[in-house]
This record gives sequence, C-alpha cells and structure tokens, in this order.
Amino acid sequence: MSNNVENKRRVNRQFLLLSRPIGDIKESNFEYKEVPIPTLNEGEVLIRNLYLSLDPTNRIWMSDMVQYMPPVELGEVMRGVAMGVVEESKNSNLRSGDIVTGLLGWQDYAVLKEEPVNFITKIHPPLPNPLFTAVGLLGATGVTAYFGLLDIGQPKPGETVVVSAATGAVGSVVGQIAAIKGCRVVGITSSDEKCQWLTSSLGFDAAINYKNTDLNSALAIACPKGVDIYFDNVGGSILDTVMSHLNLFARIPLCGLISTYNSTEPVPGPYNFGLILMKRVRIQGFIISDYRNRWHEAIKDLGQWMESGKIKQEYEIVEGLENAPKAIHKLFNANKIGKLIVKISSLN
Amino acid sequence: MSNNVENKRRVNRQFLLLSRPIGDIKESNFEYKEVPIPTLNEGEVLIRNLYLSLDPTNRIWMSDMVQYMPPVELGEVMRGVAMGVVEESKNSNLRSGDIVTGLLGWQDYAVLKEEPVNFITKIHPPLPNPLFTAVGLLGATGVTAYFGLLDIGQPKPGETVVVSAATGAVGSVVGQIAAIKGCRVVGITSSDEKCQWLTSSLGFDAAINYKNTDLNSALAIACPKGVDIYFDNVGGSILDTVMSHLNLFARIPLCGLISTYNSTEPVPGPYNFGLILMKRVRIQGFIISDYRNRWHEAIKDLGQWMESGKIKQEYEIVEGLENAPKAIHKLFNANKIGKLIVKISSLN
Repeated sequence: MSNNVENKRRVNRQFLLLSRPIGDIKESNFEYKEVPIPTLNEGEVLIRNLYLSLDPTNRIWMSDMVQYMPPVELGEVMRGVAMGVVEESKNSNLRSGDIVTGLLGWQDYAVLKEEPVNFITKIHPPLPNPLFTAVGLLGATGVTAYFGLLDIGQPKPGETVVVSAATGAVGSVVGQIAAIKGCRVVGITSSDEKCQWLTSSLGFDAAINYKNTDLNSALAIACPKGVDIYFDNVGGSILDTVMSHLNLFARIPLCGLISTYNSTEPVPGPYNFGLILMKRVRIQGFIISDYRNRWHEAIKDLGQWMESGKIKQEYEIVEGLENAPKAIHKLFNANKIGKLIVKISSLN
Repeated sequence: MSNNVENKRRVNRQFLLLSRPIGDIKESNFEYKEVPIPTLNEGEVLIRNLYLSLDPTNRIWMSDMVQYMPPVELGEVMRGVAMGVVEESKNSNLRSGDIVTGLLGWQDYAVLKEEPVNFITKIHPPLPNPLFTAVGLLGATGVTAYFGLLDIGQPKPGETVVVSAATGAVGSVVGQIAAIKGCRVVGITSSDEKCQWLTSSLGFDAAINYKNTDLNSALAIACPKGVDIYFDNVGGSILDTVMSHLNLFARIPLCGLISTYNSTEPVPGPYNFGLILMKRVRIQGFIISDYRNRWHEAIKDLGQWMESGKIKQEYEIVEGLENAPKAIHKLFNANKIGKLIVKISSLN
C-alpha cells in the first residue's frame, strides 16, 4: 500500500468487509484488495473518489442488526459516502469532470450502474470551497443537522435545545443552527477542552463535560427552564438523564445511538421511557436519505450561513485511503472535534 | 356503609388516599370517611355524583412517580372522573339540575370552587342514553381513543393498526375507529374469550391472546404487511415485541403503560428502542386533557358512530360507591371487557 494520495492509479484499491465487528471496529474487520480499474458498459459511469466521509452510521452497516438499509455483505466493498469526479461516462446524465457525492464506497474507483442505489447527487458549480465541504457541512452531515433540528425538532425562539456528541460533525452544526433560530443551546461532550471550544468558538450558551460532572446536576444548572428539544446522537444513559429534564411537549429527534453501536449485549431503552407519556414527549427517528427531495432547501440555508460565518465546521482530514480502517476509530473515541474525512485523491 | 345506591344522603361518604400502593392497589390504601354535606360559599356549586369512572390512570395518581398532574396527596379525597348533577349553585355558570363531568372524586358530593381545576364539562341536553356513556364512549374514554388514534396516529386506509389492552375501555374504541377509517385492525388481549369478542362483536380483523400464544409469531401472521400504528396502552414486553414488526415511518401513540404502573422496580424502555431510528418511528405520548379545546369534535363523531351502531362500548357498572376500592382491581386483572363504572346515585 502506498502512503501517498495519488490522482491516477493503475489499480483500484478497495477495502472489503471481512468480518462483522464484535464491540469496537478492528482493522482486521477489513480486507485490502487490489482489482483492475473497471471498464464501462453502456449506461455506466466511472468515478474517481476524492474524499471519503467517515460516519458513526458506518458501524451500523458493518453489523447485521436490523437497520435502515441492508447491511454490507461480507466480502463486499465497505459502504461509505464519498465525493468523486467522473473520469469516464457512458451515461448521458453525467459527463467527464462532473463532481458527485453518494455511496461510492471505500475504494479508489466506483462504477455507477443504476440510480438511486448509490444516492448520487451532482454538485453543480460553483464548487464549494474547500471542496470537501460537499461531504461535510454542505453534504449529508449538515443536511442531517438541518432537517433533524428544524423539521423533527421544530424549535421556537427562547426554547432550550440540548445536543449530545456536541463537538461531532452533526452535533456541532445542530447547536449553531439552534442558536441562529434563537434558542438557548447546551452541548454535552466528553472533555473540558471540547466544552471550551463549544462555548468560545461555536457560540453554545453552555457545555457539559459528562465525564467529570454529574450530568443531572449540570443539566439542572445549564437548563434552568428545562429542555424543549434534545437532539440525540448517543442514546444510552445520557438520553435517560436528559429525559428527566424534559419539558411538557418536548421533542427528541433521534439521529444516532452511538453509545450502543459497539455493544455486544442487548441494550434496553431509557428507564425514563414513562416520561414520554407523562410529559407528552415526541421521539422521532430519522435518516437523512428520507429528505432527498428537500436536500436543496438545506444546502441553500447552510451555504448562506457558512458564507456569512454564522456556522463553522471543523474538519479532520486523514490522508490516504489506506488509513481509513485505522481512522474510523476516531468516531467512537473521545478526541474528535468536527467532521472526519479521508482524502483519497486530488481533483487535479 | 350502606350497600344501596341512594339518591339523597345525610352525610358525604368519601374515600381518601391513605397510603401509596406498593405493587397492586389494595383496599387498605383507601380510608373511608363520612363528613357533613358541605354548605356553599358564594361562587360555589354542590354536585351530587352519579357515576364514577375507574381508569388505569388512577394508579398513576395514587403513586408519587413523576406524572402529568400532581399526585393525590395522602389524606386527600381520591381523584376520579365522575358525572354528577348540580344540587345547588351559587355560581351563575351552572344551575340546579345541570349535568356535568369532571374530576369530582370518590365521594357522594363534590363542591366546585374554581374552574378549571376540576376540568368540568357541562353536558348539554339531549342527555346521552344511557346516561353513563358521558363518562364512557362520550367522555374521556372515547375522546382518548379518538384523538390518540386520529391525531397522533394519523391512520391511512389500508394501514395496519395494532392495539393492546384491546378489550379495555379505550382499546376497544380505538379498534373500531380504526376499522371505520379503513385500516386492518389487530387486537392484543389476554383470553380466547376476549379474542372471540373482538373479532365477532367488534369487527377486529384479528385478535391475539398473548397469554397462550407466541406473540411474535402471532403478529407475523396477523400483520402480513407489518404494523403502521401501534396504539399502546400497556408498555413493557408487549411493546417491545410489537416494535419488531413496525413498518418504516410507523407511529406509536403512547396512551398508557399499564404493565408498569404496579411495578416496584425501575422498568427499562424497550430493547427495540434502536428501531425508532432504523424505522424512522414516531413515538408520542398524550393526555386527553391536552385536547380540552377540541373535545366537541370527538363527541360529534363518536355520537354519530354510536347512534348508527358503528361503535359499541361494553360497560361494567358496579353498584355503590362503597365498592369502588374493591372494583378498581378489575382494571389490572384479566377479566375486564369494556368500561368500568361505579354507580353512586341515580339522577331521579
């Protein structure tokens, strides 16, 4: 394996799913393979991948739990959202040089055979700057935060919004949108340094390090008027604790359950489940592909907020496809701030 | 204590909450007391109670768990929805002979001091026949079924609706409304006799006795197209099992958690909680008092459906206030079909 980001290769490097993780993802769950760069049949498109997005939901796809798409089969190329450039096209919808995002996989080259299996979106010029924001703030990450908060959460000015995994790719954007909408924003994260970043750089009203504080007391202080929206990325005991602070008619957009993905035992729902009844709470799960037809609404607002500096997204760019199996750990440990992306090749 | 239903008494018999139940409600949780029939101050109204509604939610009020109203205090008259006739009024809003429903309590006579603490609704003539339907199908019971299913559940023709505690006061009405709306209706209950009643008398498409069947397999057979709405009255393991049959974008109106009310240990949420995310499920709790301002919508439809024979409600009328502490057990054991009411006195 080369350690360089090269633009043109003579082989297509791929990572296949070799085995399903038990607990944490291991590098040995992936198999490295080199295959010839495919030749195209009529109607097909060859994409060279530029940036691969690493997301907590990848852990779901690697398992065989009941999930929102079929799991990745053993021996299949690992599924992943990526951004790529069309190298060659035998399909009138796309031509050489077009930039697209979609489920292009952990590989150098992807062949598109049929829409919408790969959920391909063409990026119309002007291209975002930097380019990789198309798989970050101006991609699934930002759009998830946007619709999860606004469509499912329906924030009203003056309400209190709590978000978990608050320095994560989605959580950090949720908090900033909530602030734009006039809400009090409280982030839950896992270090004092991250708390500092949330309040000083991202404009959160308060941030709680759940690792060194009693979360329950800290929430009481940070949310003196209770919690109207809890944007949940983690599930588990944090969800349970936040639930005891919910106001009447509170909403919980359920975006992720990252605390449970690596569990090897069945995980029960929150002990405060009964509060859904008592407080007339709405819990609603969502997956961003359900919003495909409304994608442009989010991109328009997010683009404006990005340009005007109202929303920032922090990125960690890992160089080289070969580092993807190692890098994905960062999603589940405590050191990550912002959006994790693997650079596979350069546009030019 | 007299065993008769008498219309005029010289004392006001009351049941106070003496102690909070641990596990099942015991008769010893109540204290019997006789007090003078109150005399009125300006602005007050004296109500003679006719019918007392017994409801699973009474168990919540008796506990000190976090709940949707303040719990009944020890030494207070037990809270209960009842129907009564105005005996005397020093308030221009109500006059002698008016029929009202509201939180009139476990007693012969109630004094109304201030609206809306007692959630009083005046029943305008023509009075329903039989009269007690005003605390049954044409009262909180029917209205709960109506808004829970239609407003929270939002059924569409052809969808599959599953309801638990299906022969209960609310569940039996939910199923019949769902059938009116063109849904496939499946009831979960606790005896073959009750299953028979649901399918042959109430028009359910299928009914499952969860006590002598494997609920999971039975649901697979009864719901070949999966479950779109689960109207939940019970929570616990039945909720968990039904969740594994939910379709994408399913809705769970959470009306009650009767399986957990008598629990002495903390009860976790469903192990299938993660499916809320995977299947993009909406779970929403509701309490019927939230629909006070839309009550008339429900009563209009329910009244028409009752008159045209499209909806039936079965009633069990227990004679005599003195039997209320014994009768309330019936809500939590397996022999009840329909709506449980205590007759306290006759109108004339």
